Formats: sequence, structure tokens, C-alpha cells
Amino acid sequence: MRAKLKIGKLVVIGVGLIGGSFALALKKAKAVRHVVGVGRGRKNLATALRMRVIDEATTEAARAVRDADLVLLGTPVGQMAEVMAEIAPHLPSHAVITDGGSTKEDVIAHARRFLGEHYARFIPAHPVAGTEKSGAAAARADLYRDRTVILTPQAESTARALRLVRAAWRRCGARVLQLDAREHDGIFAAVSHLPHVIAFALVNTLARRADARRLFGFSGGGLRDTVRIAGSSPEMWRDICLANREALLAALDGYEAELERVRAAIESGDGAALGEMFEGARAARSKWLSGTRP
Amino acid sequence: MRAKLKIGKLVVIGVGLIGGSFALALKKAKAVRHVVGVGRGRKNLATALRMRVIDEATTEAARAVRDADLVLLGTPVGQMAEVMAEIAPHLPSHAVITDGGSTKEDVIAHARRFLGEHYARFIPAHPVAGTEKSGAAAARADLYRDRTVILTPQAESTARALRLVRAAWRRCGARVLQLDAREHDGIFAAVSHLPHVIAFALVNTLARRADARRLFGFSGGGLRDTVRIAGSSPEMWRDICLANREALLAALDGYEAELERVRAAIESGDGAALGEMFEGARAARSKWLSGTRP
Repeated sequence: MRAKLKIGKLVVIGVGLIGGSFALALKKAKAVRHVVGVGRGRKNLATALRMRVIDEATTEAARAVRDADLVLLGTPVGQMAEVMAEIAPHLPSHAVITDGGSTKEDVIAHARRFLGEHYARFIPAHPVAGTEKSGAAAARADLYRDRTVILTPQAESTARALRLVRAAWRRCGARVLQLDAREHDGIFAAVSHLPHVIAFALVNTLARRADARRLFGFSGGGLRDTVRIAGSSPEMWRDICLANREALLAALDGYEAELERVRAAIESGDGAALGEMFEGARAARSKWLSGTRP
Repeated sequence: MRAKLKIGKLVVIGVGLIGGSFALALKKAKAVRHVVGVGRGRKNLATALRMRVIDEATTEAARAVRDADLVLLGTPVGQMAEVMAEIAPHLPSHAVITDGGSTKEDVIAHARRFLGEHYARFIPAHPVAGTEKSGAAAARADLYRDRTVILTPQAESTARALRLVRAAWRRCGARVLQLDAREHDGIFAAVSHLPHVIAFALVNTLARRADARRLFGFSGGGLRDTVRIAGSSPEMWRDICLANREALLAALDGYEAELERVRAAIESGDGAALGEMFEGARAARSKWLSGTRP
């Protein structure tokens, strides 16, 4: 039996879907004594307090982290550098820091630069969970249950920090894996960032047209599911696309080449090629859905 | 009160999701006396019989339609011309014919050419319903409940045929609209055919990679929903893409231009443009989901 995790003070910077759900899950598991939420928006913090996602709210990150045991950076990845620079001078020497960003190489580069002496206690994490909803109001204690959380620890990372972060995510109900940060970013460019770009682009393709309202009116469940993730936070996804630019552009290259193959078959009326591509996609999807997790 | 619809003999040619659900719904509504299913696959017909989707099964369309009151063409659109040519000499002079194809201009052109004297009793229809599943086993009596069915009658269409087909779809629980066939094909190229092409292409983009298995293993609900419709019938979608080629290529042009806008913003690191595009897509989707139907 492993010792029961008990975090004294957890500071969540950015109390949205990811940070809020982390706090709620640890509270429900009685794995944390006190949770402070840090945010820019007073309305969102008020919601988080009312929902008991956090016990205390503040707009001042520097003051909040002074006696923190664990700090979760739950902001969009574009804000991480600034937040790290702000808190670094005020972090106690035992505090463990983790994040919930969907890209890892950029967050690690920021941490290396801005966390200073605390860098060895920073464990980069990506909870592969989320919905198209955002904000504290969307937080759920079971968001991470049976979901994957990927840690990308560095050579400098201390064993204690890694143990604490792994234990915390496990108490949220997640299964925890480790990956190389670069490999992580390549994988998620393809399976997550690219689909989001596609969904946003498809909605805009229709929305730009003069008959957009009529188009949407005739659409059915197919379009609705295909673009569900276009309801995701624009700010968060803007940051992800910029942070993971190279891997995303490579994934986009592959996708555009595939679209060109389909276009060529349609243009030339090549039913055999088209049928083969669609059959291949259906088979791959079916195999994937029935398959095992990595 | 309108008179109660009672169809004597319904012949469903192609007993899949669309044709099978039409038969089941009319049976449940007690709006049909006898249903004959025509198909190429004996296994699928046996399933349809066992599920009581049909009362009688045959592989011979010509014989089945001899005393039909209503004939539903439920095959992929690529087979419609052949089926029409096969049944035309055997249709009785009162029989009303309709179809369930997702494209209308091509089906109408085939009907004009192959149905001969029966053309005035052909009412083209597109039930905007369906799932990624196919075959008789996927048929459901409630598939069309509160869904839209679009009729694209022609100048030559008789009032009686239109009344009968409209009444039949209404008894399936659908609301029935009328559209010009060309307009129909333009709308569905954008809201349905394009999303299917996108879903098939996205799955293949990942499936072609050497690390495909690993990629799918790390994917989450976002990808799963985005490519749900890549589980649809490859044969049906191959036919639709070829039948609606021009409108689909035009929709694909618009989409690829949109992708290029996103790519340019990512390449140049233009966060403002990217954020604006994503925000616009989220707003359009949200407005669409809360909006009224046409």
C-alpha cells in the first residue's frame, strides 16, 4: 500500500476547466487541505468559490504561492512564461510545480528560463481530457477519471516532485504515462491540434458564406459532431497552435496532401480510388475504436 | 383531419439503414399492409426478415414491383440508374416511386432517362437522417422522428404522387420540406458531403503514418467525434461524391482556402488573426446550435 497523499496548500493559477477539475478531484479525494485559486477574472473566481472548486480566491499569484506545496499552472500556454516569471521569486524551496498545458516543449523552455532554482521541481503534465466547454463553471470532479495524463519530466526533475505530481493525478482518477516532450508534441499535433484546426476551419468555411444561416439550418448530426470541438476556447487553441507550430504544420501538410488525393479522385471520377480511400478510413477507425490503449 | 394513409404494397429496393427504417416506421404506424425487400445480399435480407423490417425478401426487383403501390429506392445513388432501368418496364401505371438518396440532381437525371412514362410519379426525396451505421441491422423505426425530409419534385410531378410521398414521410415522424434540386445539392455539398470527405481524409492522414497505432492510442474524445462519420458506408459516400462532384469541389475550394488562412496565421505567428478566426468559429457554432431551423 502506498502512503496516502495529502497536499497542504494547492495553488491553482487559472481556474478553468483543467485547473478547476484538478482542484475538485483532489478535494473530493480528500487529498488536499486548502485550495487557493488565482485568476484575472473576478466573475470566474466568484463562480469557482461558489462551486467550492477553491477555498480562497485572489488575483495576486506572487502572494498566493508564498507557502504553496503544489502549484498547478492552468492558464493557456501563451501565458505560462509570464506567470512563471511572476511567481518564481516567491515560490518556497519545497514547492512542486506542474501544469496542464496541451503542449510541452514550449512550456518546458519557459520553465527552464523563468523558474530558476525551482526548475527541478517542475513536472510538465498534459491531462488528455477536456470538453469543448471552458471556465470554472465547466469544472467537474470526475473529468480525469480513467483518462490519461502524460508527464514529460526532464533530466533535472527531482524524484520527489515526480512522485508527488504522479500521485496527485492518480488521485484524480487518471492513469499516468511518461513521454519525451518532443514526441508528445508530435503525437498531439496530429491527434488533437490538427482536428481542432480542422473543426474551426470547417465552421468558418460555412459561416463565411452569404447563405450561412440556411446552411446551418439544414445541417444534421454529422456536421454537429464533426465541429463539436470548434466550441473550445479560442484563446487556448490560438496559444497551442503557435506553441506547437512546427509539429502542427507538419501534420497539416500530411492532411492537405490527403485532401488533394481525395480531390484528384473526385475530379477524375475515379470511383475505385475514392472507394478504397473511404474503405481504408472506415477500417482504420473501426480498428482504432476496438483497439487497446498504448 | 387528413385521411389516414394506407399503402398496400411497399417495395424497398436496398434494405439498408434508410430503406429499412422507412419500412419499419410505416409498419409501426400501421400505414402499410405488406413490405417486400429487394437486395443483392441474402444475409442482409435474412436479417431484415428476422427483424421484421420486411415481410418478404427477393433478389428480383423486376418481379417485386409488378403490383407495387409505393417503391422506395434505398440503394447508394450510384446504383439508381441501373435499378430504374430494371424496374421501369414492370412498374404498374399507378405506382409511386421515391428514393432516399443524398444527392438529387443526378437521381432526377437518371429518373428522367430511365423511368419513362413513370417519371411523373417519381418524387425525389432526401431524408436528412442517418448514422455512421449501415445495413438492415441498423434500421430503426424512429430514425426519422423529428428529422427533416427534403422533397425536390419536378414540374412534371403529379399532385397525387407528391401527396402520397409527403404523407408517407410524415407518418415516419419527419417534417417535410421542398427545395429546388440544384439548391439542395449545393447546400448538402457544404453541410454534409464536405464534412464526410474531411472525416475520411483525417483518419487516413493518421492511418498512413508509421506510428498510426500509437497515435490512435493517445487520441481522445475530440478526434473520436470529429471522425465519427468516417464510419459511414464507403460505397454510399463514394457515389455521393461522384454524383455531386461540382458542388462538392466548390465546397472543397472554400474549405481549402480557409485552411490556407489558418496555415498562414500559424506560419507567421499571427496570434491576433488566429484568435479572431477561432473566436469567429466558436461564435458561429454557438449561434447555429441555439438557432432555429429553416
